[in-house]
Amino acid sequence: MNIGRVIGNTVSTVKDPNLKGQKILVVEPLDNREAPFLALDVVGSGAGETVLYTTGREASFAFLPEFVPCNATIVGIVDYIREEDK
Amino acid sequence: MNIGRVIGNTVSTVKDPNLKGQKILVVEPLDNREAPFLALDVVGSGAGETVLYTTGREASFAFLPEFVPCNATIVGIVDYIREEDK
Amino acid sequence: MNIGRVIGNTVSTVKDPNLKGQKILVVEPLDNREAPFLALDVVGSGAGETVLYTTGREASFAFLPEFVPCNATIVGIVDYIREEDK
Amino acid sequence: MNIGRVIGNTVSTVKDPNLKGQKILVVEPLDNREAPFLALDVVGSGAGETVLYTTGREASFAFLPEFVPCNATIVGIVDYIREEDK
Amino acid sequence: MNIGRVIGNTVSTVKDPNLKGQKILVVEPLDNREAPFLALDVVGSGAGETVLYTTGREASFAFLPEFVPCNATIVGIVDYIREEDK
Repeated sequence: MNIGRVIGNTVSTVKDPNLKGQKILVVEPLDNREAPFLALDVVGSGAGETVLYTTGREASFAFLPEFVPCNATIVGIVDYIREEDK
Repeated sequence: MNIGRVIGNTVSTVKDPNLKGQKILVVEPLDNREAPFLALDVVGSGAGETVLYTTGREASFAFLPEFVPCNATIVGIVDYIREEDK
Repeated sequence: MNIGRVIGNTVSTVKDPNLKGQKILVVEPLDNREAPFLALDVVGSGAGETVLYTTGREASFAFLPEFVPCNATIVGIVDYIREEDK
Repeated sequence: MNIGRVIGNTVSTVKDPNLKGQKILVVEPLDNREAPFLALDVVGSGAGETVLYTTGREASFAFLPEFVPCNATIVGIVDYIREEDK
Repeated sequence: MNIGRVIGNTVSTVKDPNLKGQKILVVEPLDNREAPFLALDVVGSGAGETVLYTTGREASFAFLPEFVPCNATIVGIVDYIREEDK
């Protein structure tokens, strides 16, 4: 799982039936080595918020029993990160 | 999920039975860090269109109950992207 | 599987129901080519410890029969590594 | 899915029972950013041929109902690629 | 699938129950672009041997019907590689 920031959303009229009714957000990873990508959202996050996202097959677990063809999902809103040892 | 552009297609006569009848499109990711790749399509997109694609195991969800050996599927046509906060 | 070090944790109030009650640790991979990421933990590790983690779909196996939308899990605490041939 | 060329094969006497009887080919991706890797084959391709391969969990779908521990499979032989818009 | 060399092993007393009794080997990929990683082993390989490994969800197929939280498994010992066309 990683941390990113919501920076926008994507509008798509023609799409897979399992994506209907889902907001498709643009997420910028906090780690600059990765490019922005698109994610679905199960916690109601919005632009400017710092979020926790998961990628890959596990991203679709948040929508079970539906099999959504999605490989990135926002699963939490981050309050703060505590570094204890570095 | 990511955004790309359809730039061509691939013709293959000898292929896995589960790929028969599927158009195999060439997609160029909008993010220049990745190379073009091949994807199946469930929304009828064509050359020049900006599309939304998903990769990995989830890409094959769009074809359930068939188990298609495909790891990239076009699942939407993008109307526009709205950046709200960057 | 890879080796990393626990360097902190993440606090998130609003999150997916399957993540409730789980500690979300920040892990720094020993291999410097990768950036720190977030992982769940099934062995009770803490800050400063060297741990063994697994990523991807397999990371969620540690929580079966629950389907946790998590793609990185700490599955062991490392005592030592023995290089035999390099 | 991606395109590569078959450049050799690998001989292994001691292997997982599910890999017995499978030819293990060496594939060089057309995209030079990736290194050659090993793939199983369901279409009877051979050295010098341009092939279509799929990676990850989906690669093993070509062998269902067997669960083959394989993460790359050649699923088609490429006749030609048509670039329509670039 | 890829080829690597076994260069050591990892000792971990506290670990996920499904990893108990498994040898956790350190593998160096032949392709220098990747860093060494940890893998389980189903073919009895040892230090110095050239091995065939698979990664991702498929790596755990070698342990079915157990669901082992492992994303890299050694599935063969390589006798030799024959390059036919490069």
